[in-house]
Amino acid sequence: MRSRPEAVTVIGLGAMGSALAAALLDAGHPTTVWNRTPGRADALVARGAVRAATAAEAVAASRLVVVCVLDHAAVRGVLDPVAGTLAGRTLVNLTSGSPEQAGAAARWARSHGADYLDGAVMTTPPGVGDPRMMFLYSGSPAAVERHRAALSALGDPLDLGPEPGTASLYDAALLGLMWAALAGWAHGTALVTAERAEATAFTGIAVRWLTAVAGFMTTYAPQVDAGRYPGDDATVDVQIAAVEHLVHAGDARGIDGSLPRLLKATMERARDAGHGADSFGSVVEVLRAAAGAK
Amino acid sequence: MRSRPEAVTVIGLGAMGSALAAALLDAGHPTTVWNRTPGRADALVARGAVRAATAAEAVAASRLVVVCVLDHAAVRGVLDPVAGTLAGRTLVNLTSGSPEQAGAAARWARSHGADYLDGAVMTTPPGVGDPRMMFLYSGSPAAVERHRAALSALGDPLDLGPEPGTASLYDAALLGLMWAALAGWAHGTALVTAERAEATAFTGIAVRWLTAVAGFMTTYAPQVDAGRYPGDDATVDVQIAAVEHLVHAGDARGIDGSLPRLLKATMERARDAGHGADSFGSVVEVLRAAAGAK
Repeated sequence: MRSRPEAVTVIGLGAMGSALAAALLDAGHPTTVWNRTPGRADALVARGAVRAATAAEAVAASRLVVVCVLDHAAVRGVLDPVAGTLAGRTLVNLTSGSPEQAGAAARWARSHGADYLDGAVMTTPPGVGDPRMMFLYSGSPAAVERHRAALSALGDPLDLGPEPGTASLYDAALLGLMWAALAGWAHGTALVTAERAEATAFTGIAVRWLTAVAGFMTTYAPQVDAGRYPGDDATVDVQIAAVEHLVHAGDARGIDGSLPRLLKATMERARDAGHGADSFGSVVEVLRAAAGAK
Repeated sequence: MRSRPEAVTVIGLGAMGSALAAALLDAGHPTTVWNRTPGRADALVARGAVRAATAAEAVAASRLVVVCVLDHAAVRGVLDPVAGTLAGRTLVNLTSGSPEQAGAAARWARSHGADYLDGAVMTTPPGVGDPRMMFLYSGSPAAVERHRAALSALGDPLDLGPEPGTASLYDAALLGLMWAALAGWAHGTALVTAERAEATAFTGIAVRWLTAVAGFMTTYAPQVDAGRYPGDDATVDVQIAAVEHLVHAGDARGIDGSLPRLLKATMERARDAGHGADSFGSVVEVLRAAAGAK
């Protein structure tokens, strides 16, 4: 009996919410679903989900309630009227939002006697259920442990600690890394395809190269924590010299130069702040310096 | 006899040139070395390298001559006086430079009867000799095949075709990807460490996330080659909405906002060009559009 999959409720059946419910069903969890537009539940009901007639009925059906809707205002719109039924349950909020919104949602849920876990889904809907995909959680380490089996049906649950805003802060930071890497890839692709190369050929090499780039991040991270940035083989000065090739190569082919120029300016700021002989990790310091006293 | 490692000459013994010579020695290649400042050869001679007294002697010692010096001007400074000895040899130039410089070097080498291969080393000196590290070559596919054993002693040799400038163009494009990804990592690290998180904890997650990001590039690359960018789960419009969270999260913590603002502006340009419902791959189009008629 102890190992029987626990009941879970999923509120919000957009592309992501539907994928969450489907993954829970696949893992054998009795799954209750609710959506403001009821038709969205049809496919899930055909796969064994229970359709709740109201949001109150949905919350009442399970100790674990997962909500994934458009934004935090929609969360409150659905749950405020049924707040009285939340006591003793765990509310897992996978709706995108800011760290501040996560903190407010945690206070609201706790004021109604619920345990609150904020989460960020680090994949697109087709990746839900794949144990390699990361789900970031923060707000209640106890809730992560209590519901680990159900959360593991969605992906790999990573507990980021008791501060409710941490998952969404990491989410923003990781999306920023993604957009930056994709913008760098897009610029490189524009560059090489200007000379008859194919994007697929370049990208195969770019993906291998990202493994090396990840190695640099792994080298720089403890430097950031220690506040010391030994430059070794690749100093900021050396990289400033190399970035000139990139700027010129793009200009010669009529490619937009905003990104390489920003990268160059960022490295020059690090150099001007005294990090010329340090590693690229020192760029973290100059980005922080915008905070003034910090 | 046929499988006996061929003789190789390495000209230029900075950190990278010394690593190249050491990897060749480790693989059993009779290796002749020369550097303008002779003392740089001492450690390699102790490991079995032959010290050439002059650049002419160095070139004469091997059919395969690898040169890795400061820049293309230094290449010509060393090799112009000994150009008469190059005929019938293969010159592999691992000196950093532009595609245009590679083209000029190829013409010069060929005018002296040498086969010319331009190359880019996609690792730092400690990575030389590791078969996972990429060495990009272009200019003479025949030379890559003829010297594959020696080139494989340095890393994984990738042949990018007969255009001499291709390797350095890829080099610039891949370094641009690296700096963009590192800048994104640095911004994300500044963001999360403003809230007590450690850079090492964030970076472990960031490195896992890069695998997913690489998957997006692999999805978008054939879209670029086809000129069509189906948006599916993650359209430009959806990402513009999400990038606002990043801008605000950084501003709230006093982190420099140049990078997230550039990323947002780039996506908005894609949207304004009609790619709102397309994937991020369509950004390649708007970067190219700076070329006007292109």
